[in-house]
Amino acid sequence: MSSFTDAPSNVLAEAQERIQQDLLTALDAFFLPEPLKGAVYHAVMLGGKRVRPALCYAVADIRPGVNAAAVRRAAVAVELIHCYSLAHDDLPCMDNDLLRRGQPTCHVAFGESTALLAGDILQSMAFEILGSRLFDQSTAVDASIVLKQVQILATATSKMVCGQVMDLQAEGQHVSQEVLENIHRNKTGALISAAIMMAAVAVFEGTDQAIPELRKFGQSIGLAFQVQDDILDIVAETEVLGKTAGKDQQADKSTYPALMGLEQAKAYAKELHDQAFASLVSFGDSARMLNSIAVFLLSRKS
Amino acid sequence: MSSFTDAPSNVLAEAQERIQQDLLTALDAFFLPEPLKGAVYHAVMLGGKRVRPALCYAVADIRPGVNAAAVRRAAVAVELIHCYSLAHDDLPCMDNDLLRRGQPTCHVAFGESTALLAGDILQSMAFEILGSRLFDQSTAVDASIVLKQVQILATATSKMVCGQVMDLQAEGQHVSQEVLENIHRNKTGALISAAIMMAAVAVFEGTDQAIPELRKFGQSIGLAFQVQDDILDIVAETEVLGKTAGKDQQADKSTYPALMGLEQAKAYAKELHDQAFASLVSFGDSARMLNSIAVFLLSRKS
Repeated sequence: MSSFTDAPSNVLAEAQERIQQDLLTALDAFFLPEPLKGAVYHAVMLGGKRVRPALCYAVADIRPGVNAAAVRRAAVAVELIHCYSLAHDDLPCMDNDLLRRGQPTCHVAFGESTALLAGDILQSMAFEILGSRLFDQSTAVDASIVLKQVQILATATSKMVCGQVMDLQAEGQHVSQEVLENIHRNKTGALISAAIMMAAVAVFEGTDQAIPELRKFGQSIGLAFQVQDDILDIVAETEVLGKTAGKDQQADKSTYPALMGLEQAKAYAKELHDQAFASLVSFGDSARMLNSIAVFLLSRKS
Repeated sequence: MSSFTDAPSNVLAEAQERIQQDLLTALDAFFLPEPLKGAVYHAVMLGGKRVRPALCYAVADIRPGVNAAAVRRAAVAVELIHCYSLAHDDLPCMDNDLLRRGQPTCHVAFGESTALLAGDILQSMAFEILGSRLFDQSTAVDASIVLKQVQILATATSKMVCGQVMDLQAEGQHVSQEVLENIHRNKTGALISAAIMMAAVAVFEGTDQAIPELRKFGQSIGLAFQVQDDILDIVAETEVLGKTAGKDQQADKSTYPALMGLEQAKAYAKELHDQAFASLVSFGDSARMLNSIAVFLLSRKS
């Protein structure tokens, strides 16, 4: 583990405060009719760990101040995509979840059709924000950078949906580790990597040799996040998790602990994190925020 | 009515052939796991009038060959957004439609969760395609043009969802013409305008004075399209329409014929079309394809 870390919980708390403010500013910039507006705010503002925006900020922290508005827009956009996926995942025809972050899910609070449409519009809002002048204090960001961000986010969003389908198809089946990794690289890894890469193309302007290292970091941390999620689903209490624990087992889903045993899964999560830390070595102290977030993700309890 | 028209049905048939081919090329460029792949192809390749792509091609026909790949990508992207909206509209929690274009709707054929995810991925695929090099034979299109297209499409998609919500809210209510127009400018008009404007920024490179005239054309034709749809819902047979006729009345929806009477609604559709034709006068013969499509839309029977 790198020594270049700030206190992980402080770093994340600060990122959470920043993104909460920027999400609110972004949502307030839209005209949304009721009850859609209520559902959109419910889906977005309830909270959550805000890991993806925090990763955007942490990458930007390597080169503070470069294309800062593009980084802030990317952080908002990637979180809106994540929130859309949760609203749709929770729907009765999907996981039929009633509770998320200790609150009624979007369709429970606002009805099924409104929750569906809230998810739909969150996706297009994300792309609107990426191409907008939101948070732009001075000069406009180069269009080619923003277009790269659009490409990264759109591709990751498609991959996320493919991963969800692959995950549903794998239910009740005994899949290999290779198949499971392919599911998770799409389902959760792609959007986590996208958060990192959208910030990376903004702050390194798409040309720097830092990009491949950050891509490797994103891939490792994205997979580690899912392995950790599977572990937490088994070991965490429902109360701490804020959602129903043990759901994966109930649904007979393929998970890392089911595939390799709990202890092996923990070791694998650690190994992936070590790979992630290794990708940051060349950045030295400038990547301390990224290091901190990686530490947080490994040690999180929910 | 302008004299600068080709035979409307031929023009549309040719556009339909072109978009069918390009849609297939575009879909084939993606890796999609089953059953998602089947659902996506079902939602997209069943057919339909392809009005939005035809409008893209018709705008491009004013200046043939300029940024042709960007126009083709825009045509595919706007149709994918339209197809996503239909797949979600048909879902049980929305209109619960079993039939579309004479075929089982996406959720009837593939199940509800797959239809939901097919709609979801069609949206992100649309943005992927806009920013891609698909159909690019030679030089890349300027990033600022593509980014404008992304903005236009994302904004229109958000408006479409807002329009759907306003439409659902207006069910069973007697709304004013102003309110009804606001619903339709969002629900259907925005995406029709977007088709025109995405092609316009590509072929006029965002600077030409043609843009305001085409914007006016888009607004008039977009609203006319919806008025005509409302009229057809009353007068057309289910067989010709390929979907259940009279559904609006059953659902107690606000429509133009309900608001102003059938004959007045017909006169209003004609008036909006005349406004649309007037916006094209300055283009002379170069807008003959746009004229033809406008004629088709006014005279269509389904």
